[in-house]
Amino acid sequence: MRILGIDPGSSVTGFGVIERQSGGVVHVAHGTLRLRGDSLAARLGLLHRDLREIVASHGPVVAAVEQVFVAASPRSALVLGQARGAILAALSESGLPVCEYAATETKQAVTGSGRASKLQVQKMVQRLLRLERRPASDACDALAAALCHAQSFRLRESGRVPRRRARGRGMRFAVKPGS
Amino acid sequence: MRILGIDPGSSVTGFGVIERQSGGVVHVAHGTLRLRGDSLAARLGLLHRDLREIVASHGPVVAAVEQVFVAASPRSALVLGQARGAILAALSESGLPVCEYAATETKQAVTGSGRASKLQVQKMVQRLLRLERRPASDACDALAAALCHAQSFRLRESGRVPRRRARGRGMRFAVKPGS
Repeated sequence: MRILGIDPGSSVTGFGVIERQSGGVVHVAHGTLRLRGDSLAARLGLLHRDLREIVASHGPVVAAVEQVFVAASPRSALVLGQARGAILAALSESGLPVCEYAATETKQAVTGSGRASKLQVQKMVQRLLRLERRPASDACDALAAALCHAQSFRLRESGRVPRRRARGRGMRFAVKPGS
Repeated sequence: MRILGIDPGSSVTGFGVIERQSGGVVHVAHGTLRLRGDSLAARLGLLHRDLREIVASHGPVVAAVEQVFVAASPRSALVLGQARGAILAALSESGLPVCEYAATETKQAVTGSGRASKLQVQKMVQRLLRLERRPASDACDALAAALCHAQSFRLRESGRVPRRRARGRGMRFAVKPGS
């Protein structure tokens, strides 16, 4: 089962693809999509198209998207929202179910602590996926979201059901170690 | 030349199509798109698809989109941004240039006053497009955006150039009567 992780950003969106196998998870691909184009509409149209191409070339069956930590100004929330809208529409039109995870959940799943630093997350993602180099920040957060989903899936398979579901915004799990 | 007007909203998006002819403008269609679906991603995917279908069936060559009046909370700006992102990506992928207009500009273009009430705008849109009934609010604002673009276009054709361009967010015109 291939999982596509996404970390949507106002100007740069990270993506990462991993594959769940019987022996664990393996890395497939990761990278970033930078907004480009003359106008806002052109930039969002290209982001939508790029994401559909990533889905088509790597064949994930589910997407794990990092939730927004809403503490920004209305203006920056609007700009981030516009990128998220193009991304979520592309994932839906590619036929992928979308699960959203808070950043604290992805950090918890990867490092064991919801308050881990960026560097700690990068080191653990590198180790878990046996990467030669530490992935850059945006792609790393996307890989962490995919790893978080893989762990949630494993917990569900083992009968450890998710603690809660987000209201109407796809599934979301709070993974408590040992729960 | 057919113009598609759009008034993006968090849950309801208005649209309106008009056609510029030598004798003036005529009404082609208007209506609303309501977000529907089980998850946020599904709702945005359907909004994106619906909009592309409207473009395909009515054949506009340009889109006029109402700008956001940013006074909302970060949470509501994020939700509105997500809908706008799906909409703008759809318009771009349909090959339409997108012009954005502030609500005060569309009111000014339709009624002569940037502070006109909703009812005044509805009455003027009804009269200008010779509609049997007053259009409902969301679709009316979309038709007003399309009419505003038609007026800007006429002013540009007559050599009355636009006063300014928005920074990197498509074109935008401030139409001053008699300027």
